[in-house]
Amino acid sequence: MTIEFATRYRQSSRIPPEPGRPYFIEKGMGDRAHLFTDLFTIYAGGEQTENTFNFFTCEGPKGDTIPAHSHPDTYEVFYITDGAVRLFVEDLAGEQYEKLLTSGDFGFVPKNCPHAYRIERHHSRIVGVAAGPGGTFERFFENLGTPTAELGLPQEPFVPEPHTFATVPRQYDVRFLPDHQWRTGG
Amino acid sequence: MTIEFATRYRQSSRIPPEPGRPYFIEKGMGDRAHLFTDLFTIYAGGEQTENTFNFFTCEGPKGDTIPAHSHPDTYEVFYITDGAVRLFVEDLAGEQYEKLLTSGDFGFVPKNCPHAYRIERHHSRIVGVAAGPGGTFERFFENLGTPTAELGLPQEPFVPEPHTFATVPRQYDVRFLPDHQWRTGG
Repeated sequence: MTIEFATRYRQSSRIPPEPGRPYFIEKGMGDRAHLFTDLFTIYAGGEQTENTFNFFTCEGPKGDTIPAHSHPDTYEVFYITDGAVRLFVEDLAGEQYEKLLTSGDFGFVPKNCPHAYRIERHHSRIVGVAAGPGGTFERFFENLGTPTAELGLPQEPFVPEPHTFATVPRQYDVRFLPDHQWRTGG
Repeated sequence: MTIEFATRYRQSSRIPPEPGRPYFIEKGMGDRAHLFTDLFTIYAGGEQTENTFNFFTCEGPKGDTIPAHSHPDTYEVFYITDGAVRLFVEDLAGEQYEKLLTSGDFGFVPKNCPHAYRIERHHSRIVGVAAGPGGTFERFFENLGTPTAELGLPQEPFVPEPHTFATVPRQYDVRFLPDHQWRTGG
């Protein structure tokens, strides 16, 4: 059963637009977006869960540490299925931690905790859940980045227009922290 | 950083009992429980997310289809990271679907939809998120089953005492459907 739907997000999506409907999505076939060097794939969002949770993956090449940021109202899971990802996180008291996560490892970032990550092996994949009492924010990636029908990583990095940084992050509960420093040594 | 906590669920847990604290859990080291032939491992629960979502894995041997059931207030994700799992689900109109899911494939079961699954390869692993507006229900597995400090699958199947079926499922938003039949042929 491969059914495609027109939704408010895609002309062709495997995610049914109406809630309450069971569905299956084969590997890689969720709603895809490119942001910088990475591919984000949404398998479920707020419409499917009465806004309680979402479910997506992030795949990327070995690269640099992403910009530090926090989410005032969103808890976030990092579960690694492939490769290796170094997760940086600061608790509410200012203590900083980092850990290299590999397949099967898990990291949890509470709301308001500054965090970042660096993909340390090619062909890495992170499973993410990002949600909180204020809702789910899975469409951040395609609004700061761009939706794509392609499979696979971006051929060229997708760099957002500067003006989108002024508006999109706040709409999706993202606060970039440009002056933040990681002192953990990794 | 390997820190162990005494929580209301375990004498020794990798999940911090107080919310708002970042943490990492290495593969397989979440709160573990045995139920029948399977190992359930919780990495985050309602205490960590203001009751919006949880995150757990289910690992099991190739086996039989589990009993059909539904959740009146819970949406459920089945994301396969290893092996092969056949997911059976019935929509609210009574239409039935089944699909063999392998690594990277995704299934979504809305609240009130009867469903079941059958692990079809040894060493399979399902990532699960089960939550809804009424909360999260990750402690079902250890209350119908039994908590364990062991790593790996049960040496012998853990069969619940019959009386627990009368009380535990309803406390965790589980409704078994003993007369349910799958007509999908798988």
